[in-house]
Amino acid sequence: MGRTADYSRQSCAIAATLEIIGDPWTLLVIRDAFRGVRRFEQWQERLGVARNVLAARLKSLVAHGVLEQRVYSERPLRHEYVLTPKGKDLNTVLLTLFDWGAHHLYHDPDCAGVAFKHKPCGHTLKPVLVCSDCGEPVRPRDLEMILAPGPTVGEVLAREEEPREQERA
Amino acid sequence: MGRTADYSRQSCAIAATLEIIGDPWTLLVIRDAFRGVRRFEQWQERLGVARNVLAARLKSLVAHGVLEQRVYSERPLRHEYVLTPKGKDLNTVLLTLFDWGAHHLYHDPDCAGVAFKHKPCGHTLKPVLVCSDCGEPVRPRDLEMILAPGPTVGEVLAREEEPREQERA
Repeated sequence: MGRTADYSRQSCAIAATLEIIGDPWTLLVIRDAFRGVRRFEQWQERLGVARNVLAARLKSLVAHGVLEQRVYSERPLRHEYVLTPKGKDLNTVLLTLFDWGAHHLYHDPDCAGVAFKHKPCGHTLKPVLVCSDCGEPVRPRDLEMILAPGPTVGEVLAREEEPREQERA
Repeated sequence: MGRTADYSRQSCAIAATLEIIGDPWTLLVIRDAFRGVRRFEQWQERLGVARNVLAARLKSLVAHGVLEQRVYSERPLRHEYVLTPKGKDLNTVLLTLFDWGAHHLYHDPDCAGVAFKHKPCGHTLKPVLVCSDCGEPVRPRDLEMILAPGPTVGEVLAREEEPREQERA
């Protein structure tokens, strides 16, 4: 991101998240990581994205701890990229994006590119966002927004990069 | 979008959704719509976004049926923008983005800009994505992906615009 948007002075977890994954290619890179893609050439082939763009996105996702690099060949030295636990938690974001598009754009979850079987119960997944306390589906009209001032996006992202800087030192 | 990404040949509900909302400003425009913002000047002031960029995003969201225009002043003629039911269903996308950022970037949901009280039960919302059939939280390792070939993103978006073209005719 960064080229057209500057949210760094906002205090907002949504804006902070978008600073890291709020680029369409980035979300498709992560989508494909969930589908088993681990190597540069695989992403490049599937997405048809420019190599320099893909390289920049992967580097950024590693820097932010969403993907981690693993060596899969010593000679020549080659890395692959796998989702960290932090990256795997983006599953909910991708499933809600999928569900909205399957419902409102494809109008038919059975032909929306893929479907997901929920293995524990055997049904085709229909994801629902619920309140962890009462278990009821979350509807916009049931939410009351409470201001919870905190650090700005810029401060949060700077702080996030510190430990990694120290690790490298 | 469009400038750097072309997903139009993919068959994928995620890619189709990103064609419509996969731009960081667009998601912040929608975030603020959920918080009661309805007028151009309010978005402009809150986001600090360039006027031409904001105008283009609002126009696109109306074209795709996420926002609808309503007249609030006849002389001079002025419109405001409100979420449609289709737009309100993006609530789940925004809440999962928020939850990820509050947890993984802010590391503290109590200072992530805002918090949400779930009015029916009175608790601070901790959203959880569950399977509608069995009610269990959805974990990546519990999902089996099944190919469900369908129209491409380009075909879906072209089809989506047809009814609106007819309405205008």
